[in-house]
Amino acid sequence: MKTNAGRFFEDYRVGDVIRHAVPRTLSGGERALYHALYPARGALYSSDEFARSCGLPASPLDDLIVFHTVFGKTVPDISLNAVANLGYAEGRFLAPVYPGDTLASQSEVIGVKQNSNGKSGVVYVRTTGTNQRGEAVLEYVRWVMVRKRDPEAPAPEVVLPDLTKVVDVSDLVIPDGLSFDRYDFELAGERYRASDYSVGEVIEHVDGVTVEEAEHMLATRLWQNTAKVHFDATHRADGQRLIYGGHIISLARALSFNGLANAQMLVAINGGAHANPCYSGMTVKAWSEVLDIAETRVPGVSAIRLRLVATSGTGTALRGSDGKYLPEVLLDLDTWALMPS
Amino acid sequence: MKTNAGRFFEDYRVGDVIRHAVPRTLSGGERALYHALYPARGALYSSDEFARSCGLPASPLDDLIVFHTVFGKTVPDISLNAVANLGYAEGRFLAPVYPGDTLASQSEVIGVKQNSNGKSGVVYVRTTGTNQRGEAVLEYVRWVMVRKRDPEAPAPEVVLPDLTKVVDVSDLVIPDGLSFDRYDFELAGERYRASDYSVGEVIEHVDGVTVEEAEHMLATRLWQNTAKVHFDATHRADGQRLIYGGHIISLARALSFNGLANAQMLVAINGGAHANPCYSGMTVKAWSEVLDIAETRVPGVSAIRLRLVATSGTGTALRGSDGKYLPEVLLDLDTWALMPS
Amino acid sequence: MKTNAGRFFEDYRVGDVIRHAVPRTLSGGERALYHALYPARGALYSSDEFARSCGLPASPLDDLIVFHTVFGKTVPDISLNAVANLGYAEGRFLAPVYPGDTLASQSEVIGVKQNSNGKSGVVYVRTTGTNQRGEAVLEYVRWVMVRKRDPEAPAPEVVLPDLTKVVDVSDLVIPDGLSFDRYDFELAGERYRASDYSVGEVIEHVDGVTVEEAEHMLATRLWQNTAKVHFDATHRADGQRLIYGGHIISLARALSFNGLANAQMLVAINGGAHANPCYSGMTVKAWSEVLDIAETRVPGVSAIRLRLVATSGTGTALRGSDGKYLPEVLLDLDTWALMPS
Repeated sequence: MKTNAGRFFEDYRVGDVIRHAVPRTLSGGERALYHALYPARGALYSSDEFARSCGLPASPLDDLIVFHTVFGKTVPDISLNAVANLGYAEGRFLAPVYPGDTLASQSEVIGVKQNSNGKSGVVYVRTTGTNQRGEAVLEYVRWVMVRKRDPEAPAPEVVLPDLTKVVDVSDLVIPDGLSFDRYDFELAGERYRASDYSVGEVIEHVDGVTVEEAEHMLATRLWQNTAKVHFDATHRADGQRLIYGGHIISLARALSFNGLANAQMLVAINGGAHANPCYSGMTVKAWSEVLDIAETRVPGVSAIRLRLVATSGTGTALRGSDGKYLPEVLLDLDTWALMPS
Repeated sequence: MKTNAGRFFEDYRVGDVIRHAVPRTLSGGERALYHALYPARGALYSSDEFARSCGLPASPLDDLIVFHTVFGKTVPDISLNAVANLGYAEGRFLAPVYPGDTLASQSEVIGVKQNSNGKSGVVYVRTTGTNQRGEAVLEYVRWVMVRKRDPEAPAPEVVLPDLTKVVDVSDLVIPDGLSFDRYDFELAGERYRASDYSVGEVIEHVDGVTVEEAEHMLATRLWQNTAKVHFDATHRADGQRLIYGGHIISLARALSFNGLANAQMLVAINGGAHANPCYSGMTVKAWSEVLDIAETRVPGVSAIRLRLVATSGTGTALRGSDGKYLPEVLLDLDTWALMPS
Repeated sequence: MKTNAGRFFEDYRVGDVIRHAVPRTLSGGERALYHALYPARGALYSSDEFARSCGLPASPLDDLIVFHTVFGKTVPDISLNAVANLGYAEGRFLAPVYPGDTLASQSEVIGVKQNSNGKSGVVYVRTTGTNQRGEAVLEYVRWVMVRKRDPEAPAPEVVLPDLTKVVDVSDLVIPDGLSFDRYDFELAGERYRASDYSVGEVIEHVDGVTVEEAEHMLATRLWQNTAKVHFDATHRADGQRLIYGGHIISLARALSFNGLANAQMLVAINGGAHANPCYSGMTVKAWSEVLDIAETRVPGVSAIRLRLVATSGTGTALRGSDGKYLPEVLLDLDTWALMPS
């Protein structure tokens, strides 16, 4: 069998480093598609001129293009036999990526724990994306539940990584040269600085997008994510194609422009959960909650910690009285973004 | 409320200049998407070699990419609370736009007139698109009907701009260096020069395209047009998404290749009306009527004035006996294009 | 009538050379769209770095982008009145194409044979794609059945070209500089060399893609292929849009990554048949059969001859007991690809 059957739980050993296949050179084409697939309007990612006024050499590719590209490469090695994508932690964007850059990714297994049913287990990996100069551009921890090939295989020693709940502000990487001293709020689309937001503030982002099959498949393929459930309507008994969780992340992030237009750069993903599956035909809306606001080492550049929630319903409720995510909640993502102070 | 609720009728004052948000750098990616979304085949916009044989440094981006990009930026400021997009006038393309250029746009309010019902009014704006060197690349007048926030707000003094019905041929801007002396009709796809057309001639463009939701949403997002009605199936009681009128303009213009392959460059939009709404599932066809043919100041370069009509029906009927657009007519656009003499 | 009605059978004369309209400059945009439309992951076509490690100056555009672009231009002249696309032969990729290159195509009529019913005939053309330096990048023979305009028109003298069944290995063009000496199998995604495959081996490529209308139309327009049946749901009595055969070729080729990741470059299309039509909603899978393995003149570079089959069913059956293609078989394509020895 020359085709890839994917790894099973017992194939992962703590300390293993997996170099993922198929590096990718990104161009203005990926950016144009990203902007056609999501209502993305962050000025720094839209205009070379705006980016230069913020001290960067040109407009970088949207942070989530980088995330999806690095993530997509891990799918054949990490999540082909995954039952569930359980969480993210310690995600940091380490350097901007520009058209022409080539990304590769690798993952280190940092934790394993067999489930009590003996049929599956949880695998923790730390994934690093690098550019053609070998510089790390992104790292994050992700954990997935993976089936065992052989239920009789012995359980490995439990190793649980010690994960930070929230990336410390001092660990956020501010791109070299970034400055908001000449920031043009009118061109950026909103007048609010970090000091205009308050912790606990909730912003409903108003707009909604009804999702189509063709769109999420275009997106998912663009990141070379090959998970069958996204493409093959015959794969599930109900004939539905499960939408790649990252599609929802990008959709929600783009919708959050309306109210958070100046949360320009994502610099950290503190945590996240794909609370419920999304299918085509659902109308996705987003809301955000301000979790924290902090100064960075660069004067004038604040970090704003945001809970970004995608919902197929209306309103800003997150959990039921049982403490569980409400059925309409699709995504609960905890991020740090950079904003003019 | 940090989200944008849009301006209402009483927020517009004649003489106000609005700088629209989110400048945009365009690349070959936008061009590729444009050619995937519309059956565009104009040789000048398809081949660097062909464009150079016409005296340009490279193949410019399709004129309507420029139109949509400039237009899209105006939506949050001009038409978020618009009831209807009423018309266009005095549109002129002022300079070609190339991959790598960054476009911004601003609008001046040039007219207001409250409706007799007191609940809404008509706003006239002159919008200008500029590139990164501050050069104007496009200007046009557009008027929209906008709701009032407060029906009790006093009516402003009526100001109606004095608009030219048809851009004068002497006001058309011929791109520097443009020459059709070495024009290759075979490579362009048809053998007809301006002198082969006659005023009053009607051309049915034969081909039709059945419109899909995913396509019009990809297009509309690409131009960063955020009007909710195009994306959110829950927004209207009938569950339908209204297709951005510009999508129909581009579709019709691209279909008009078959019979007007040598009407290479759009240089003016004299007027236009979105006669009826378009929804996915409709099959859009196009026909053109030659309204005028004129020489420009450049020998060998003629201007051809064309009525471009998009229809969801068949045939070339425009108006009923009552003088109103027939229900199948989607678009009636009056343009000047440049063609070899 | 200024619109193109297309050529009819009696319009083709052996020896005629047709220069097809609308040359096209390709960019990273076309590549990004190709990768969004198909699950393409060949490392050589994904990463500039990987391509350089194989001796090329940068990552070329996918071979099938070149094929579709050259093919699309022929449609208005060759297959607008075609009843059926009957076959391909002697296809060879002659030089890599890079972003920024401009392609044009022309066809020579090399055979005609009227059908016994007198209403149509078969036309054979040899099509050549060239770049902006006039270098041939692709050539192939294609034959189509074309309607007669006038059934009473006399039958032309029968000319049947003498076509090679399989391109000889010595006629395959290996790109200048190509070397697999530093080939990184891990980054390429699989560990199998040509010597790991055996003639007669069948590989089921596992993954499937359910096809959407929006996707095949985006693809077909991108190649400026204007055949009405692909776009206009009102064209056929059954309201279905026929999917461009090339869409299925690309889909199957991309799916074949899983099991043939190292069959990097297509260098020949020996033959091919679109066995049955494909419509949206079908789930397309692919399988391959190894037909031959040979050394090329470049040490370390093998040629692997593959039958690539696309199916809307499951399994790897090709023909029924009557020798005819099974109804679920969509494509049967015979190719040569280059692979590390």
